[in-house]
Amino acid sequence: MKTYVIRIDAPDKPGLVHAITGVLFRHGANIVSNHEFVDTDTRRFFMRTAFECTQPPHDVVPAIQALLPEGASVGLAPTGKRDIVILATKEPHCLGDLLLRATYEAFPANILAVISNHDTLAPLVRQFNVPFHHVSHLERDRADHEREILDCVAQYQPEYLVLAKYMRVLSPGFVARYPSRILNIHHSFLPAFMGAQPYRQAFERGVKLIGATGHMVTDELDTGPIIAQSVVPVDHTATAISMAQSGRDVEKVVLAKALKLLLEERIFLHQHRTIIFD
Amino acid sequence: MKTYVIRIDAPDKPGLVHAITGVLFRHGANIVSNHEFVDTDTRRFFMRTAFECTQPPHDVVPAIQALLPEGASVGLAPTGKRDIVILATKEPHCLGDLLLRATYEAFPANILAVISNHDTLAPLVRQFNVPFHHVSHLERDRADHEREILDCVAQYQPEYLVLAKYMRVLSPGFVARYPSRILNIHHSFLPAFMGAQPYRQAFERGVKLIGATGHMVTDELDTGPIIAQSVVPVDHTATAISMAQSGRDVEKVVLAKALKLLLEERIFLHQHRTIIFD
Amino acid sequence: MKTYVIRIDAPDKPGLVHAITGVLFRHGANIVSNHEFVDTDTRRFFMRTAFECTQPPHDVVPAIQALLPEGASVGLAPTGKRDIVILATKEPHCLGDLLLRATYEAFPANILAVISNHDTLAPLVRQFNVPFHHVSHLERDRADHEREILDCVAQYQPEYLVLAKYMRVLSPGFVARYPSRILNIHHSFLPAFMGAQPYRQAFERGVKLIGATGHMVTDELDTGPIIAQSVVPVDHTATAISMAQSGRDVEKVVLAKALKLLLEERIFLHQHRTIIFD
Amino acid sequence: MKTYVIRIDAPDKPGLVHAITGVLFRHGANIVSNHEFVDTDTRRFFMRTAFECTQPPHDVVPAIQALLPEGASVGLAPTGKRDIVILATKEPHCLGDLLLRATYEAFPANILAVISNHDTLAPLVRQFNVPFHHVSHLERDRADHEREILDCVAQYQPEYLVLAKYMRVLSPGFVARYPSRILNIHHSFLPAFMGAQPYRQAFERGVKLIGATGHMVTDELDTGPIIAQSVVPVDHTATAISMAQSGRDVEKVVLAKALKLLLEERIFLHQHRTIIFD
Repeated sequence: MKTYVIRIDAPDKPGLVHAITGVLFRHGANIVSNHEFVDTDTRRFFMRTAFECTQPPHDVVPAIQALLPEGASVGLAPTGKRDIVILATKEPHCLGDLLLRATYEAFPANILAVISNHDTLAPLVRQFNVPFHHVSHLERDRADHEREILDCVAQYQPEYLVLAKYMRVLSPGFVARYPSRILNIHHSFLPAFMGAQPYRQAFERGVKLIGATGHMVTDELDTGPIIAQSVVPVDHTATAISMAQSGRDVEKVVLAKALKLLLEERIFLHQHRTIIFD
Repeated sequence: MKTYVIRIDAPDKPGLVHAITGVLFRHGANIVSNHEFVDTDTRRFFMRTAFECTQPPHDVVPAIQALLPEGASVGLAPTGKRDIVILATKEPHCLGDLLLRATYEAFPANILAVISNHDTLAPLVRQFNVPFHHVSHLERDRADHEREILDCVAQYQPEYLVLAKYMRVLSPGFVARYPSRILNIHHSFLPAFMGAQPYRQAFERGVKLIGATGHMVTDELDTGPIIAQSVVPVDHTATAISMAQSGRDVEKVVLAKALKLLLEERIFLHQHRTIIFD
Repeated sequence: MKTYVIRIDAPDKPGLVHAITGVLFRHGANIVSNHEFVDTDTRRFFMRTAFECTQPPHDVVPAIQALLPEGASVGLAPTGKRDIVILATKEPHCLGDLLLRATYEAFPANILAVISNHDTLAPLVRQFNVPFHHVSHLERDRADHEREILDCVAQYQPEYLVLAKYMRVLSPGFVARYPSRILNIHHSFLPAFMGAQPYRQAFERGVKLIGATGHMVTDELDTGPIIAQSVVPVDHTATAISMAQSGRDVEKVVLAKALKLLLEERIFLHQHRTIIFD
Repeated sequence: MKTYVIRIDAPDKPGLVHAITGVLFRHGANIVSNHEFVDTDTRRFFMRTAFECTQPPHDVVPAIQALLPEGASVGLAPTGKRDIVILATKEPHCLGDLLLRATYEAFPANILAVISNHDTLAPLVRQFNVPFHHVSHLERDRADHEREILDCVAQYQPEYLVLAKYMRVLSPGFVARYPSRILNIHHSFLPAFMGAQPYRQAFERGVKLIGATGHMVTDELDTGPIIAQSVVPVDHTATAISMAQSGRDVEKVVLAKALKLLLEERIFLHQHRTIIFD
């Protein structure tokens, strides 16, 4: 028996759960877990159901689609690992953590390749036998640099791109190539300290908690829908540098958590928010 | 339109969600929120659905009951405040917090009375215009003391009893009078430091976090199903006394949180565990 | 034996701890706790020492002052309760919590009076036998309103003013009357969501943690030095209203914590930051 | 200029801070940070001072020793990396995290070797170019197995041993060879769930938080002085297996934090407790 996830995003109307679970029941699906949510402001209905089935349940999708109002979307996928490509710059902590998890632990990612604008991380990546591509941004314009990265990514056909402390801003054109498929870890408790040097900003503001935010990347920098956030306390003895050190443990845990939610198909994007069925 | 909560606890079988939501749909219920869970070890199904309805939906219960396997239970109640009686001893922080919330905030409790084995808390309770009963345990045996407390409680016919730092152990006979209806706040991170003087025990063990546990009271002391737990950090400068002070903020927040979940009918008891739909 | 706290804020130079502890030793002071910190950026030295002494140690201050470089300040005070006046608007949770603590628990505040621009909180305050002053802001200008509040505060001569969800912005002139002596609780994780309706802002941004910030009030709104911050998780089911409800527990705990630190003379202000010896 | 740490553990008497800082001042030491603590129950004084010095300050130790009462101990060491050997069993998450930190981040450990009673982790260790020793416990008695491990450790002369999910109990004889020099990560919130299968125990008890504890190893299993603890929330959907997965992130962060504190000489052991100057 294989396990599948069906995801529904539709205008709400009475009886949806009854109708949808009826289709699944008639197809012999054994429901493993089931989550629904209706956003009361927008009357939008979201549902994620994991179920076991002895045979491929592909006719389930049109059967459910037929029940739903206009403007609905239905997705079906088997559970399992998803292919990702990671972009990084110089910092090893998030990247190393993902390499460890994907290689030695039960983590739902195949890391197909790592691309960086520096070569600092090459030894780390190569010791895990993962392809490493150094695409320098020096002495070229942004468009040209992004084009080479996109070409490099394209050869791997990943389902998701993960920015593991990739310290360059992506252009809207780049993001449009992977809509709702790019995950970023931002080294602050967004929306505080957007932009450059968030730990320096946090130090100067004298905050007592520092945080990290895992979010989807949309056109505007640092404003995509948030998936996960966490914080750690700091006190007056912290410097901007020691805040950054403390922040690293948060960053890597938050990124791994957000990525797992994403790869397990637990996240719906709705306006600027995420609906997360965990 | 009134809002109701229906709670179902039944052996699992395929199609339950479909069948139950069908009954609700046919009765014109507008589902506001819906949670299900199947415990995979025991194949037990739990469901809590909040719905709006223009007329009393009392025939919904037998209609659903008819669909369910043997051994199922179905409960229906309108949402709203629940009547409670509080037992306390000498400490004001949890009791005062509940009095504040019930009197001045949106909190789903009517505090009918407070009973204590000391008279320390009388001024606090009376300033909120809540009846206070001093039932001393001195110079009498436990059975006699409990009998008077039970008599005192009985006149108020509360739905739940709340032990807000009531420092005496209840006998099995007492607990049997309010099965699954007594909530306690234990001043430690259970199951660590059960029994007397948990902060003294925590100090001597040198822990770096201290906690509190909100749990249902069953026959055995400190072993009822856990609803909520929280912790705060402590360091080497903490004494047993300062740990107790730090612990108070955790205790009152955890008790209020657990009580709200209980009064909103969000908790199912299953073996030694709780299933909480929040 | 009485306990005193001496606080020193001075340009750093070698040997300060040795010299200062020498003075205390020669005056027969028994050091109970001792904290020092040097801000390495600005080479500023901070020290807080609690000590027991059989007789008033007032000549300790000039003796220490004589050892310190130009620009140093030395303060001495007995430990104990401090007089405060609270400003509030309509919300009872922070105010009620402080009234409970000051009345029934070991908390270092005497609440001399509560002033509000609404009369909503009068019953709560009066049940604690604390004077309540309703100073409406309606049909008058800000200067006039503030003048009446200042007059009202002045008659109590408090050491500190506490804004317990006082929802009006204080003018620089008002703040200048109580420099470094006004504490505020801000209902967000500053610097995120400054200004009005922070929970609405938080909801729209889709954050997964909401927080509260206890800070000193300076000229600019929401930018005073931060004393304490805390957060609670929220998920996609949260509305702006339920976020505000969840936030209340954080607000009251953070405000009480910040106030205790302030009243125990544990806080030094330095640029936009606080140094906290706890 | 080199940085040193001096650590003093002595019976308390008046004037100690003054006297000790006097010695440091006369030797031209520039104090970088300074922490003291007096345990009021036992009248024991603890001090950790980090200072810069142009020349080796070895005569500082006898000069301070001369000032202290009988039963005092004084230690001096330059700051910097410390040599460790890691013992592990089969789980990669803690070990991999320490290898990453020691290899690619600013972490004060040289990992000289890893020893395991299984060969599962050999590929992970070897990809970091760290010696891996497989010392199987099969078909031999405990004494014999421990003897081989001790021989293997001895050739590396590490300052500390780190048990990174080493799932076998060490005999008192083994522990006595490295007194106060063995760090363990225990996969529960000690003292709850001591012994085997803590996540199974936590699941059966229905706890709502699971934790990890970094502690020094003493003769008795799971009862050594605690250095660091942390928790994560779990809910009713967690199984014993998923609790263990959630627990891993806590374990690795807590172990790394405890190890950093240990290697930076920030920990004093006192009875069953730790005093930690961070």
